[in-house]
This record gives sequence, C-alpha cells and structure tokens, in this order.
Amino acid sequence: MKPKAVPTKGPALATKKSPSIVMVNTGDGKGKSTAAFGTAMRAVARGWKVCVIQFVKSGSWKVGEEKAAKSLGIEWLTIGDGFTWDSKNMDRTEAIARYAWTVGKEKILSGQYGLVVLDEITYPMNWGWISTSEVVDVIRNRPTSVNIIATGRDAPPELVDLADTVTEMRKVKHAFDRGVRAIRGIDF
Amino acid sequence: MKPKAVPTKGPALATKKSPSIVMVNTGDGKGKSTAAFGTAMRAVARGWKVCVIQFVKSGSWKVGEEKAAKSLGIEWLTIGDGFTWDSKNMDRTEAIARYAWTVGKEKILSGQYGLVVLDEITYPMNWGWISTSEVVDVIRNRPTSVNIIATGRDAPPELVDLADTVTEMRKVKHAFDRGVRAIRGIDF
Repeated sequence: MKPKAVPTKGPALATKKSPSIVMVNTGDGKGKSTAAFGTAMRAVARGWKVCVIQFVKSGSWKVGEEKAAKSLGIEWLTIGDGFTWDSKNMDRTEAIARYAWTVGKEKILSGQYGLVVLDEITYPMNWGWISTSEVVDVIRNRPTSVNIIATGRDAPPELVDLADTVTEMRKVKHAFDRGVRAIRGIDF
Repeated sequence: MKPKAVPTKGPALATKKSPSIVMVNTGDGKGKSTAAFGTAMRAVARGWKVCVIQFVKSGSWKVGEEKAAKSLGIEWLTIGDGFTWDSKNMDRTEAIARYAWTVGKEKILSGQYGLVVLDEITYPMNWGWISTSEVVDVIRNRPTSVNIIATGRDAPPELVDLADTVTEMRKVKHAFDRGVRAIRGIDF
C-alpha cells in the first residue's frame, strides 16, 4: 500500500476556554467505560477529586479497574444491582438504580469534584427508571467546574445534544462473537 | 420517549478460552488511547506486567496518564518525537519511530508482558516508516501469553484482519471543533 503523506501542518488552534465539558461515550463497541476510566486516571493524576458511579455493575463483582482506581484515590461507587437478567427482583434492581442517581446528583451538585463519571447511566435512563430530563437538567445546571462523562449504549438524544464531545464506540468485530470468553485482566 | 424493555435474558455464554487477544482501537473519535490506558490499568491491577509504548507522543510532554500509570507500576515509554508538524528534522522523527518499533518488538518477543500497548502505532505504519507486514508478523507469532492493543486512526487492513477485537471510535461531535481548548486533566 502506498504510504500516506506525513502531515506537516497541524490543526487550527482552539481558542475558547471552557471551565468544564460533558462527554458521552456510546455505541455497541468496546471501550466506552474503559476510556472513561482512563480519563479518570488522568484527572486524578492532575490532583482533581474524581468520582465514578457505576449504575449497572454491582459491588459484588470486583474488577481490576476498581482496584487500580481506588489505589490512585478515585472515589469508586458500584451502586448497580448487576445484570438485569440476573435480577431476582426487578423492583429492587430499579430502586437501586434510582438510588445511584440520587448519589450521582448529590456528587455533581456538591461542586467538589473535578470529574464525575456516570458509568452505564444510559441503561436506567432508557428503561424509564431514572428521568432523562432530570439528568440532563442537573448536568446542564451543574457547578461550572465539574466535568461529566456519561457512558452506555443508545445515549438519549437530549444527552447527546447537551454534550460537548460525543464518541460512538462502534464494534467492527469482537472476540466474544467468535465464542471467546472474556479475559480477566483485559475485559474485567 | 417510550422506555425500552428491560433485558431479562443475557447473551449466550462464550465457551472458548483464548490465551491472549489482539485489540485495535481506531477511528477519528476520542478514546482510542484512553481506552487502551484504562485496560492497562485493569491489567496491572491483576498483577500483570504491562508496557505502554507511545509512537508519536514525545517524552517532553508529560501527561496525567503517564504519572498515574507509572505510580501503578506500568512501564511507560514515550519514544515518539511529537507531532510531525512540529518536527524540525523529519528523518530524525522517522528514525525515532523506527526505534520505538524495535523496542516494541523486543518487549513483545520477550514474553514477559501480559499486555503490550502500541499507542498510535498506525501513524508510522501508514507513513511507511515501519513495515506493516513486519508488525503484523511479530504480533501473529508472539508468545501466546502476550495481549496486544494497537491504537491510531486508519488501522491498516492487515492489522484489522489479524485482530480479535476491533473498535472504531467514531466522532459524533468534539468540543475542539467548536474552538474549545483541550482541558488539562481531561484531554491530557
């Protein structure tokens, strides 16, 4: 293949300073949460107070990123009830997701965090468990210093509209589809 | 909007165990490298030996993720010469990228790492600075315990073919396009 030209001119410089931004990682591919955790790691290294709230994963499933994040000083809250298909009581699962949002809202409104990650929040939003318009209002009217990252498939249009940066992680292929099991250390 | 149905049935279980996989994060959107760093954080928390090699970023640009990664025990090598449009000597910039690959190859072939991240390697591949077929051969014939993540736009088709999991980070929108400057702690 013919090599591409080496770029010798950079992009135009951005000039506007934003006190904080809202990012959304959505799509059916890998890396939505993982990229958010990578950013959390970057933010905490800069001395920020960082909080990650997991809306689906439950506390009983200890994962590698949680261990690493906590050792860096990231506040890490797994308030979800686990996969819905494992739920023995869907009302309880829904109540736990609602509670996760009351905690998320509190963290955002406290103004104490440089970054709040709302991991997999799109699922309870899309299931009608937590109000999309309330989430969007809280994010829109947040203390100006608080950056937000929201992750999950099928991000609601109102959330996408509000966000400054939106990335769709699109699955080109995934080992799982060939029957390959998740690898501890890579996938969780 | 009408809520979506809550899933009550999980996906079919995967049954094949793979000793290691190859992941590629490509596309024009945010999160290719950040997701790789998030995975590196997860892997090191599992006790793996992890190495990140940056093919474009230079060592003079200290970033948050490097600080966090090193504190976790990740081996972090920025061997790039920086953005090509800042290069004062393109032959030297090319030589540095080639050297980064000799280091990357050595790390992979040593078999000592659970994960080797080849960050932004697609750029020197696409510019004809390092041989795509050599990179693909080394990855294909690697020690079976070594997982690989390669990142960068326009991943060469041979690399995509070889990979187990490929994600395209697609830009839906980006604050930068509205002239918003990168935020220290979020973007670097």
